[in-house]
Amino acid sequence: MLGFAAANLSVEVRFLDPSANPPAAACGDVIQSSFDDHVALTKLAQDCDVITYEFENVPVTALQQIHGLAPIYPPASALRYSQDRVEEKHLFQRLDIPLPPFHAVSSRADLDVAVDKLGLPLVLKTRRLGYDGKGQRIIRDLSELDAAWQQLDNDQLVAEKWVKFDYEISCIGVRRTDGETAIYPIGRNKHVDGILHTSCSPFENDELQQNASAHVTRLLEHLEYVGVIALELFVVGDQLLANEFAPRVHNSGHWSIEGSETSQFENHIRAILDLPLGATTARGHAGMINLIGEIPANAFEQDDGIVHDYGKEPRPDRKLGHITVIADDAARRDELVEKIDKSVIQST
Amino acid sequence: MLGFAAANLSVEVRFLDPSANPPAAACGDVIQSSFDDHVALTKLAQDCDVITYEFENVPVTALQQIHGLAPIYPPASALRYSQDRVEEKHLFQRLDIPLPPFHAVSSRADLDVAVDKLGLPLVLKTRRLGYDGKGQRIIRDLSELDAAWQQLDNDQLVAEKWVKFDYEISCIGVRRTDGETAIYPIGRNKHVDGILHTSCSPFENDELQQNASAHVTRLLEHLEYVGVIALELFVVGDQLLANEFAPRVHNSGHWSIEGSETSQFENHIRAILDLPLGATTARGHAGMINLIGEIPANAFEQDDGIVHDYGKEPRPDRKLGHITVIADDAARRDELVEKIDKSVIQST
Repeated sequence: MLGFAAANLSVEVRFLDPSANPPAAACGDVIQSSFDDHVALTKLAQDCDVITYEFENVPVTALQQIHGLAPIYPPASALRYSQDRVEEKHLFQRLDIPLPPFHAVSSRADLDVAVDKLGLPLVLKTRRLGYDGKGQRIIRDLSELDAAWQQLDNDQLVAEKWVKFDYEISCIGVRRTDGETAIYPIGRNKHVDGILHTSCSPFENDELQQNASAHVTRLLEHLEYVGVIALELFVVGDQLLANEFAPRVHNSGHWSIEGSETSQFENHIRAILDLPLGATTARGHAGMINLIGEIPANAFEQDDGIVHDYGKEPRPDRKLGHITVIADDAARRDELVEKIDKSVIQST
Repeated sequence: MLGFAAANLSVEVRFLDPSANPPAAACGDVIQSSFDDHVALTKLAQDCDVITYEFENVPVTALQQIHGLAPIYPPASALRYSQDRVEEKHLFQRLDIPLPPFHAVSSRADLDVAVDKLGLPLVLKTRRLGYDGKGQRIIRDLSELDAAWQQLDNDQLVAEKWVKFDYEISCIGVRRTDGETAIYPIGRNKHVDGILHTSCSPFENDELQQNASAHVTRLLEHLEYVGVIALELFVVGDQLLANEFAPRVHNSGHWSIEGSETSQFENHIRAILDLPLGATTARGHAGMINLIGEIPANAFEQDDGIVHDYGKEPRPDRKLGHITVIADDAARRDELVEKIDKSVIQST
């Protein structure tokens, strides 16, 4: 989707991807290599005027290897924070962004301290390389501590107080090299089994929007960020608690292709190329339904939905595409999302 | 734009194009060859499950050369009609689609007969290979006849009564292999020097919409058409007079990327792949402003506009891109189109 946005602005794109036939191949040449292959990285950097990435598990060392050959956005510091949940949480604290209580865990004894400090239930997560609910365990009872510790089998963990949040929102922002910043309307997310299932924006709540925008703006400015960032936040009553940020275009902003004056993808491209940012105003009321595991046979028969098929190999729990709906009001949007969601689930 | 629509549905695309670095290269491999190169055509046809074209000056013989290797849509008959203004007009007559009076001209004497029959002013056009106002002359006075005849230097001409039309509209339709048909809301076009300058849709006029839709439906059914077709019509009072049709996605439907539930490009791909057609309902009030000759430096600074840059070499009168605006009502849309149009003109 970044490739489409770039091509639509007549920007030529090259990709580096470890997989044999990535979706990106539809929009440009692909260098097939691991993310830390020095020869491949150097070739990419020499061919390009600017480098970006859209996967937070790219090693920071990959960015370091090509440092100086071409500007790299978002900055490596953002990637580094996003790769370590403890560092990320410390950053939130320094920026006065509220977050659930947590405790770093690098031994079985630390875990007991965490329980004393946070109470139960708590969520035990790997500090690094987690996504879509992978690498985490909810601990509800003291008897589950040993099993969780053994299953995660990792001494770089963090325990988080289990927050009974009402729902989760995302706030997506973008910052250009010259400091120009724009924030998208917040969206409300629904997860199933730890995987983002639907995302609806705008979620019209002025107070939450203002707070979330302020948090994202502080992140963007502190990191001297360039590109799109996504901040996920828990909503508890009228409070926001930061969950995590992603230094990239984000699944919870895919609705912006049809639901915003300028998509997150185009604004990312504009930001890294130092072009004026496009408006982030909502266009109608958008809802996005992820297509997970397979593209259902009836995906193309949803009258009200716009289908995006990423061309990925089907695999359980893999995000293979999404459907966007746009309605004139939030009630109708929610109705359509539910209708399509049911229809898609029934067909799988 | 067809390539983007295909890629977004995970449909792999190959192209054949005579130019060295066509915009389509952004979305797939390009065979660089003339449109009638037998080896290149055969290779393309052998590589593809279905063939389409988006240029009405592709020779019909090119389609004939690969007949039987893969289905080709739209059908060759549609291409043939669209390549000969006289045959096209006879088709309109047979289908009871009103059109301005005309007379085929293949000699200087025919031209005098045309003047007697149609009166002055009249428009003298080449039957074949005209576009963007090229290959035509307006004759206002008998003294201009000889010059026009000599300038066009062609014995395959057609004279058309010069219609003082109020404005021009386009009606875009699409038909799937199984006969399913959908029609887009009509759009109002503005030309400058024979080149489409802006197109705005929906143009809300129930009577014109009904008549235009009926004409397009008759064309689609008669031709057993598959894909997108565009019919240009003059509006004179409450009458519609057919100007010409194009057997392809059309510049006057570019607004549909943002201004329709399903773009003309996606519906063309759906039609030729025998997928269910997407809804052609309007999304807001769309206006499109062509970027002609060059992409103005301020194109990316239009807050309200969505820029499409085709990546073509600048050249006088060449369509290099377009800007789309979407508004909540027609008045605001027209205001935005005028604002951007002025801003873009001032910068060139």
